[in-house]
Amino acid sequence: MATADPPSSAPLGEFGRIARLLRPLAAGFPGALDLTDDAAVFAPPPGRDLVVTTDAMVEGVHYLPDDPPGDVAAKLLRVNLSDLAAMGADPLAYTLTTALPRSVDDGWLAAFAAGLAADQVRFGIALMGGDSVSVPGVPVLSVTAVGTVPAGRAVRRGGARAGDAIAVTGTIGDAAFGLAVRLGRLVVPDDDARTLLERLRRPVPRTAFAAALREGATAAADVSDGLVADAGHLARASGLAIEIDAAAVPLSAAVRRLVAADPGRIVDAITGGDDYELVLAATPAAVPALAAAARAAGFGLTVIGRALEGPAGGVSVRDARGDPVPLAGTGWTHF
Amino acid sequence: MATADPPSSAPLGEFGRIARLLRPLAAGFPGALDLTDDAAVFAPPPGRDLVVTTDAMVEGVHYLPDDPPGDVAAKLLRVNLSDLAAMGADPLAYTLTTALPRSVDDGWLAAFAAGLAADQVRFGIALMGGDSVSVPGVPVLSVTAVGTVPAGRAVRRGGARAGDAIAVTGTIGDAAFGLAVRLGRLVVPDDDARTLLERLRRPVPRTAFAAALREGATAAADVSDGLVADAGHLARASGLAIEIDAAAVPLSAAVRRLVAADPGRIVDAITGGDDYELVLAATPAAVPALAAAARAAGFGLTVIGRALEGPAGGVSVRDARGDPVPLAGTGWTHF
Repeated sequence: MATADPPSSAPLGEFGRIARLLRPLAAGFPGALDLTDDAAVFAPPPGRDLVVTTDAMVEGVHYLPDDPPGDVAAKLLRVNLSDLAAMGADPLAYTLTTALPRSVDDGWLAAFAAGLAADQVRFGIALMGGDSVSVPGVPVLSVTAVGTVPAGRAVRRGGARAGDAIAVTGTIGDAAFGLAVRLGRLVVPDDDARTLLERLRRPVPRTAFAAALREGATAAADVSDGLVADAGHLARASGLAIEIDAAAVPLSAAVRRLVAADPGRIVDAITGGDDYELVLAATPAAVPALAAAARAAGFGLTVIGRALEGPAGGVSVRDARGDPVPLAGTGWTHF
Repeated sequence: MATADPPSSAPLGEFGRIARLLRPLAAGFPGALDLTDDAAVFAPPPGRDLVVTTDAMVEGVHYLPDDPPGDVAAKLLRVNLSDLAAMGADPLAYTLTTALPRSVDDGWLAAFAAGLAADQVRFGIALMGGDSVSVPGVPVLSVTAVGTVPAGRAVRRGGARAGDAIAVTGTIGDAAFGLAVRLGRLVVPDDDARTLLERLRRPVPRTAFAAALREGATAAADVSDGLVADAGHLARASGLAIEIDAAAVPLSAAVRRLVAADPGRIVDAITGGDDYELVLAATPAAVPALAAAARAAGFGLTVIGRALEGPAGGVSVRDARGDPVPLAGTGWTHF
């Protein structure tokens, strides 16, 4: 841990400034030791396994230089929370590494810290440590998030069985079209643009669904690379194939309008990525309880297909007539 | 966790390549789930607290572009292991985030992974997850290391009491002069250059001393910012002052020769940083057992001063006649 970095040649420069802004974020987690020691120390909750994930974001790759810093903070934390949610884990604490050029000003940092603070409250997680370094290049931000599950109850990718229903939370494709809008490659009505951009910048990790997932799902992954790609990860890990009904994939009103205008866009929606929804497998009998839990948490759960005996990792997509939908790509493309 | 990143526009490009090289590093830690899931899952050892630290390294700041990749890997892991050692923690597992430009070639990555593999065996730690992203700028490497201590036994910075002896492991200053040699600012005999550079590039975290530290020290920190600065961190956290006898600071033969030629260089040694030794406080009665444990682990432990009632965080350095040694700086200066 080194947010309280060297007094060094630039006393209370970049490092002191960042430490001052970040220290309040650690106040709610005693194990952070106020960021004054070499490391965080905490007693893991008895009877629970620890779940640890890391995700980094790079300016110009995962976000754009003029994105609001509060949105950058939110996305950084949320992509990690989404990984925890996919394992059925409840958030506990995180470490933050910032590699920022010296040109980043106080205003940016303060807004970034405020974005973290708001999400800490919303999702029940606290800063426990980190490192702040200066970089003679583009900013790189990294979070390692720690969550917990009751012992032995983490939801894996490899537990699906042939005959399981495949379902997703929320809606799919908003972020992909939000990115197209953001890059000026797609023009939509203002209201739709706002909705799609919000989904791109502030995905909502399904943290509130973690307990239900542990109870009812046989396997899960979060949808970061694209629905087809992530369903493929699940299929590969489970040693089976997955069939998706394109017409069943849940779409927001904004994406429904886009697909109505050009039906081929359904492929962009299901391969675009960055949704941070969950794709899960469950026995058909377990679906109603999962759907009820999702509804209680404020979002939908939609059955979109099924797990089948078949080549491990194979994902086929069928249209409403049962014909195969050809897929141009199966993963997320960086900016 | 996303080392198994998008098949995306560049199937099995940067991400697949890195994942292939890193996956074997996770083979020894079942909780890593072979890096195939969204996160690592493990049962924390019963009766132990978890200790978590993060340290990042930036090319051109913490290492130079033509440093051997195995050395870069070793230093990245070791600076984190040093933080664990300073808390008295035993290493368990780590996550790795690589933000690398696409120009980094297979040879560099293979040598980097080999460096990690060798140190995993040496220090008893394993990869449990990570993220690999591409960066349109300089490389940024980050590790979050997890260790454990018996519950309630982590060694803090704030536990020193007036009357405690202040001691350091190993020798001080080698890395600072190694950096000067590396940058062509200092010329020394070849043998000394090799020794100093080795200490700069491959500091030895005092992992083997963690158990003894828990038994015998009242406070500790690792020497990363410089002996004076890190003693200051310990003094501030403990609410007291520290007095250091410059003549007592343990020096390697190479540094002794440099200081003999120019006595003012002792200030560079004690303020230069990057030593990754431990500075600790202990009751005088506890020192012999600590020294014996250090000796058994293959390095020295030397009493260099004392903790005193006084302004919290104050560090004074005295020469052999008891006169104050003026300090030009008190922390580590980046390249």
